[in-house]
Amino acid sequence: MAQKITPRATDYSQWYIDIVINARLADYAPVKGCMVVRPRGYALWERIQQGLDGLFKATGHVNAYFPLLIPESFIKKEAEHVEGFAPELAVVTHAGGEKLEEPLVIRPTSETIIWSMYKKWIQSYRDLPILINQWCNIIRWEKRTRLFLRTTEFLWQEGHTAHATAAEAEEETLRMLGVYRTFAEEFMAVPVLHGVKTDSEKFAGAVRTYCIEALMQDRKSLQAGTSHYLGQNFAKAFDVTFQTKDKTLDYVWATSWGVSTRLIGAIIMAHSDDKGLVLPPRLAPIEVVIVPIFKNETKDAVVAFARMLRDALAPDFRVLLDEDDQNTPGWKFSEYEVQGIPVRLEVGPRDMEKGQVVAVRRDTGEKAFIPVAEAGVTLRTLLQSIQTSLYQRALKFRTDNTFRARDYAELGRLLDEPGGFVEAGWCGDAACEARVKEETKATIRLLPLDRKDTGGAPCVVCGKSARDIAVFGRAY
Amino acid sequence: MAQKITPRATDYSQWYIDIVINARLADYAPVKGCMVVRPRGYALWERIQQGLDGLFKATGHVNAYFPLLIPESFIKKEAEHVEGFAPELAVVTHAGGEKLEEPLVIRPTSETIIWSMYKKWIQSYRDLPILINQWCNIIRWEKRTRLFLRTTEFLWQEGHTAHATAAEAEEETLRMLGVYRTFAEEFMAVPVLHGVKTDSEKFAGAVRTYCIEALMQDRKSLQAGTSHYLGQNFAKAFDVTFQTKDKTLDYVWATSWGVSTRLIGAIIMAHSDDKGLVLPPRLAPIEVVIVPIFKNETKDAVVAFARMLRDALAPDFRVLLDEDDQNTPGWKFSEYEVQGIPVRLEVGPRDMEKGQVVAVRRDTGEKAFIPVAEAGVTLRTLLQSIQTSLYQRALKFRTDNTFRARDYAELGRLLDEPGGFVEAGWCGDAACEARVKEETKATIRLLPLDRKDTGGAPCVVCGKSARDIAVFGRAY
Repeated sequence: MAQKITPRATDYSQWYIDIVINARLADYAPVKGCMVVRPRGYALWERIQQGLDGLFKATGHVNAYFPLLIPESFIKKEAEHVEGFAPELAVVTHAGGEKLEEPLVIRPTSETIIWSMYKKWIQSYRDLPILINQWCNIIRWEKRTRLFLRTTEFLWQEGHTAHATAAEAEEETLRMLGVYRTFAEEFMAVPVLHGVKTDSEKFAGAVRTYCIEALMQDRKSLQAGTSHYLGQNFAKAFDVTFQTKDKTLDYVWATSWGVSTRLIGAIIMAHSDDKGLVLPPRLAPIEVVIVPIFKNETKDAVVAFARMLRDALAPDFRVLLDEDDQNTPGWKFSEYEVQGIPVRLEVGPRDMEKGQVVAVRRDTGEKAFIPVAEAGVTLRTLLQSIQTSLYQRALKFRTDNTFRARDYAELGRLLDEPGGFVEAGWCGDAACEARVKEETKATIRLLPLDRKDTGGAPCVVCGKSARDIAVFGRAY
Repeated sequence: MAQKITPRATDYSQWYIDIVINARLADYAPVKGCMVVRPRGYALWERIQQGLDGLFKATGHVNAYFPLLIPESFIKKEAEHVEGFAPELAVVTHAGGEKLEEPLVIRPTSETIIWSMYKKWIQSYRDLPILINQWCNIIRWEKRTRLFLRTTEFLWQEGHTAHATAAEAEEETLRMLGVYRTFAEEFMAVPVLHGVKTDSEKFAGAVRTYCIEALMQDRKSLQAGTSHYLGQNFAKAFDVTFQTKDKTLDYVWATSWGVSTRLIGAIIMAHSDDKGLVLPPRLAPIEVVIVPIFKNETKDAVVAFARMLRDALAPDFRVLLDEDDQNTPGWKFSEYEVQGIPVRLEVGPRDMEKGQVVAVRRDTGEKAFIPVAEAGVTLRTLLQSIQTSLYQRALKFRTDNTFRARDYAELGRLLDEPGGFVEAGWCGDAACEARVKEETKATIRLLPLDRKDTGGAPCVVCGKSARDIAVFGRAY
């Protein structure tokens, strides 16, 4: 039953899969490219949902639910949208034993069905803003899939808001980018860059796409969330107009924004090690596991003591007591390390006598003796300290792996070795961007929002004057 | 803007739709038979989810997520299952721009995909029981649909458990029936009959289907939840065996159980009146709305007072303060009656002087003056009293509309007028059951679990000796 996890240095991709499978977060489904989110993975998703949902509601959003199936003609109403999504659609052609008059596509995202409803609901500026979010499943037919990171079906949330002015919609787009950044950094303990995508990387149908990007331990970038300013594109496609305060008619302004079960992949890859999963305490479904250590003759007393400890902690912590007497303590230590539980408390007969427990941090392996009377207070501090140090460690890793390329040769070299984020001047021309992608497989991950002064730097590709300092990287 | 709701006595079906639309719980989607669950309807669904999920977790269940798409061949593995669901399937034949080798069906329920995974996960009795629940969307192609009650796509939860013995699976089936009953009666304030379905009404693939049935105000019965004992049917179809404690090999025993957004329909039809929605406080997304009553010169003071009241109540209640100064108090009263908010608090300048508020119950319209200092305590009692009296009223209605038929003519008469539940002897023969259905459009809703002594009664159809006292009714 010993868990076998391939070391990162041997094969990073296999290491990732070993963690997902051995920590029982997910499994391969019998349908190509699909996954089953197992209970431990789903418990993590529930923590993510709770955290995000709280932030959404605190910023005035409400949840709703729109249909899974979208008439094919709807997808075609916005020219860029259909071009972007057509190759990834799953199509229902038959239902109820009959061929459908019009095929229905399974939502790859819900702008079109939602804006067809907004047309019914919006007449006047009094009906605005609409601040709706939806938690649901999505299908995009992907050729190459990886558990959590890219699957044919995934779970996500998609916000779709409608506004009376462009400025208000822009403000909302950036507000939600901020919410994602807060969530990534404060809940996931994953530092993120935030910025705007280039035209070639933006959402099909958006005027501008903002994103957060995180650096994984293999120095690849992972897009962890996007927030789109849609302008009036979907309002025009679905003819959604409203009477303004000064009695004129205008098209409605829109945003959309989403994050998905991909965040689980980000958490795994940002923090875990060769022993298994490492979870940030704030999102860990179980924060602390108690492992009693006993022989036959000490079992009753030690288990009773462990139960008291569990009962004392249960009101304030997500705690698990493992009373099983088939597996050895050593087996359990290793199992809970694979599962990524942030703190392990060991209790043996000696500890009981001394009124103490041994606390072991998952992230560093550090041990400490804690007086039982202070267990709650010490545990709270310990969990906070783990949360902070995971973030700090990831931040240092990113800092250590962010470089500046002065010329095209250096850009290529840095992307190859060591990898990471490489900043370089860019003239703004799509041809230069395309050349980098073709020759190095790296893309412009984003143009930082707090745009850096180019300092007169040239475009790293063509040598013309740079418009932006762009962040290049290879991505998931 | 006045809301128009058709009185129940005029047209009960239209009354129901008027409530759903005017309370903005749902709207018709552009796809046939589908609905959009609007924010107020979804907030109610979130309360239902929270309540049920708590009960599921308290009984040892965990959540997971399985794929939306099921290979067509899976559905065909259990003979009764495919026969039951084939006519309702939506089929994906094309994806990613290509025709699929094997069509995929959208889940009408997930037994087949889940048992294909259980085959991977179960080897030994040590792997049992598995107690998994899933919250998801479902598609069943229905010919005649009604918002919440029967829609092509709906949201639900489906529990799927695996056990080492038949007895344990039976126990689980009944435990979950009990959970549904508790939820219906204590959260929804809807009294339910509980019992077992006849063979002709059971789930396609089950050995036995248990259900809860509720009586609506039009004296029709609504199946509000089902719990299925599946025996080894799906284990055999998917070849899921396990090594027992005594080292033999056996097929795994199974249950499944589910409730859906249909519960929202049950809540509406059990409690609401001609003014609009009436919600049980325990599930109401907003328990209390504060309506300040002011003129221009008193506005600031009254609103400040109302805000103090809101802030005092907010930690303990789901409270809304309506500060809008465009709509009149009368308009607001009527609007919040349509929305079904259990208690309205009115505050005017006089009340402010006297340090009181006026509390109005949504269910009875009763008014009471409450000293502001006691608002919290009084409100708690008031909400509990509304919850209880909704249940009692519905229970009395059911008692008043439950009859006993001595012969076939009386059964038909009672089903026609006044309607309701009609108990009668039944021999157990499917032919007798079918005749009732054909001639009266009523079905056997259930055979009560606490089976009543037939007292030597004859079958109400054929006159032979009755095996059961069956509960007949017309159903949604």
